[in-house]
Amino acid sequence: MKKIKQLNEYFGEEVVISGFVDEIRNLKWVQFIVLRDETGKVQITIEKSEEANKELVEIVDNLTIESTLKITGKVVESPKVKLNGMEIIPSKIEITSVNKGELPFNYKDISTVNLDTRLDYRYIDLRSEKNILMFQIQSTIVRYMREYLYNNGFTEIHTPKLLGAASESGSEVFEVKYFDRSAYLAQSPQFYKQMALASGFGKIFEVAPCFRAENSNTSRHATEFTSFDVEFAYIDNFNDVMDLEANMLAYALEKTSEIYKEKIKEIFGTEIVVPKTPFPKMRLTDIYKELEERYDYKIEESEKTDLTTEAERLCFKLAKDKFDSEFLFVIDFPAEKRAFYHMRDENGILQGYDLIWRGVEITTGAQREHRYEEIVKNAKEKGLGEDVKFYLDFFKHGCPPHGGFAIGVDRLTMLLLGIPSVKETQFLFRGPNRLNP
Amino acid sequence: MKKIKQLNEYFGEEVVISGFVDEIRNLKWVQFIVLRDETGKVQITIEKSEEANKELVEIVDNLTIESTLKITGKVVESPKVKLNGMEIIPSKIEITSVNKGELPFNYKDISTVNLDTRLDYRYIDLRSEKNILMFQIQSTIVRYMREYLYNNGFTEIHTPKLLGAASESGSEVFEVKYFDRSAYLAQSPQFYKQMALASGFGKIFEVAPCFRAENSNTSRHATEFTSFDVEFAYIDNFNDVMDLEANMLAYALEKTSEIYKEKIKEIFGTEIVVPKTPFPKMRLTDIYKELEERYDYKIEESEKTDLTTEAERLCFKLAKDKFDSEFLFVIDFPAEKRAFYHMRDENGILQGYDLIWRGVEITTGAQREHRYEEIVKNAKEKGLGEDVKFYLDFFKHGCPPHGGFAIGVDRLTMLLLGIPSVKETQFLFRGPNRLNP
Repeated sequence: MKKIKQLNEYFGEEVVISGFVDEIRNLKWVQFIVLRDETGKVQITIEKSEEANKELVEIVDNLTIESTLKITGKVVESPKVKLNGMEIIPSKIEITSVNKGELPFNYKDISTVNLDTRLDYRYIDLRSEKNILMFQIQSTIVRYMREYLYNNGFTEIHTPKLLGAASESGSEVFEVKYFDRSAYLAQSPQFYKQMALASGFGKIFEVAPCFRAENSNTSRHATEFTSFDVEFAYIDNFNDVMDLEANMLAYALEKTSEIYKEKIKEIFGTEIVVPKTPFPKMRLTDIYKELEERYDYKIEESEKTDLTTEAERLCFKLAKDKFDSEFLFVIDFPAEKRAFYHMRDENGILQGYDLIWRGVEITTGAQREHRYEEIVKNAKEKGLGEDVKFYLDFFKHGCPPHGGFAIGVDRLTMLLLGIPSVKETQFLFRGPNRLNP
Repeated sequence: MKKIKQLNEYFGEEVVISGFVDEIRNLKWVQFIVLRDETGKVQITIEKSEEANKELVEIVDNLTIESTLKITGKVVESPKVKLNGMEIIPSKIEITSVNKGELPFNYKDISTVNLDTRLDYRYIDLRSEKNILMFQIQSTIVRYMREYLYNNGFTEIHTPKLLGAASESGSEVFEVKYFDRSAYLAQSPQFYKQMALASGFGKIFEVAPCFRAENSNTSRHATEFTSFDVEFAYIDNFNDVMDLEANMLAYALEKTSEIYKEKIKEIFGTEIVVPKTPFPKMRLTDIYKELEERYDYKIEESEKTDLTTEAERLCFKLAKDKFDSEFLFVIDFPAEKRAFYHMRDENGILQGYDLIWRGVEITTGAQREHRYEEIVKNAKEKGLGEDVKFYLDFFKHGCPPHGGFAIGVDRLTMLLLGIPSVKETQFLFRGPNRLNP
């Protein structure tokens, strides 16, 4: 069985190919089928006048679009055929499945189809070239982020998603009926990533679902999403964490660009830019100063404890104008606004960061507090008690300095390809009002 | 920062290393520390008589075992040192975290420690060389299973674990409180893997958690486990599925063997055997016949509709004796005992299989039913109704012939290394009575 993309290696030879019927044109003297697989499309040509084609002609006469076929035929170079300059002259056509009727909508022209309909019939929506390609690219970027980490001595782990306690913050946690008690779904693998380092693993990562019981409807949020989580020990400070993340992203973007640069331009109309490392870093206060000076963006002082959505958006422009970079690390957030496990230095300055790419936050990262007395104190300050005791115990018997970050895979895909919402970059979106199909 | 494994490239040079204090020997004239990271151990030697060492000696005098250190020192070749024939002569020792007291148990000698205690303090239990190595090997075999698939045109997808309906079988499904309604945790990505193929993805895989509300306590079961799921289209029959699985496992085992063969022998006392492909296949009835003839294993006819645990165990011997193979595909299970989505041929013969490795089932695989009328009929026969309607819809508008399989990553690790239970090969085991830490 050959894939359609490979066919230009087989001119003059007989091959077997399979795929969906993308188009049928049944003319007076000739029939054309366009066959589609996940690698491309090819034209099948059946001359009606040829006696040997009688059976094939009958098959195509009764064929429905979007059925699937297995075709044996000869690959012929045909400069007159617009589609790849080739056609298949079939000797055998086998219908392997039949489309039973009209599609719920035309996935090739979604301009008038609303997103909910598309998601209701996601198994049809995904058939578009754009969607298949989107997930091939997503798979590729994740592949090369992993490869960068393997090459740098990281171990992939799999931490549990069922928890005995609603650890980080009870309000946004899903509760599970677990035999005669309750369990809770992990919002992130944060505590267990850190446990690995307290257990002597030097460098680990995990790619797994996270669950958030947030009843909010934005283009960037979902109740379930795939998180690419990294954590590693023996760092000197949080610059080591930022450097690793930048190098990993640069490596994966370069590899993805090598394979998909042209396709991304053609199909998504966006440019994949391989970033230079290290990425630029700016303090939160300096960002607000420059946003005001450069772009006249003014907000209340009280709002400047975090990046507003608009400020995030403007950071794209700022990063481009000031550093010729699509990426910008933002540091020096007020410590009290951040998780209790982020480290503060001796002056109380948070050793954490956000990474903004193309105007959207894709990562929160930090050096973590690894000293037992300090982490116990931090937890107490946040009013966290019994529920995090199991986590605090991890630091009792020695735990090296460490840090890490997490990247949402769906959000990364959205930004890479210029897709408006994670509702489209998740294979099957999950939100407060969506659990199907 | 160097890893301990790399130090033999730096004889005579000054390096920085970090790790846990594995041993301290404080003698009259000299102090020894054994430092441990995830790649190995090395001896640090401090001569007490040297005036320049005064500060270092004081640090070591107050050092507790299992604290973590950052050490600057010179790598010296010392044939008299049993540990790698080298030692570090430090110029600087920095304590990066302090072990606050006695460990809950001695993880270096677990002969008298019960498994529950080990799992209660898993962050200590994991510190053993054996456990760190186990997860490095698990990461490696998964890495190369993925690599085989990438090299063969597969795309990795991420399907949701939160479902709107308790699809496959309601009884073993965890229920989640989902805002004002219920959701259910995926027992497997089966339906969504198949949806990908109905959507035009030709070859996909996923590595993700599965959840089973089974109140059973065996060495092979867990309520949450990591599943390596593969599904691909345009197959001719289920031999294509078995062949792909065999080739993938052979590739991953060969790569893993190249890196870890000696270590696995040394630390786990087991031999990693790179299998020859294709793997042997036997019919279920023939297996029972041969088990009786060869090993006098007799059971009631009524029990022969599936492999008993004992028969599975004996299949290891049978596969070795008859085929010189550790693997054995078992085919021709009675169709009525299998899931409704497994294909039957025109004679009603199930187009599915189990794969037995070293006497334990590691996979169920099959060609799937892709024809709409047939899958609807099969579902009805099993009494499945509204809950699977969304799944049946996937087949309405064309879906190519396809098949796939799933491998439990924890179980694979267990069999590879000869570990008695998945309770030890899961990073953090989850069972009916275990949700912590």
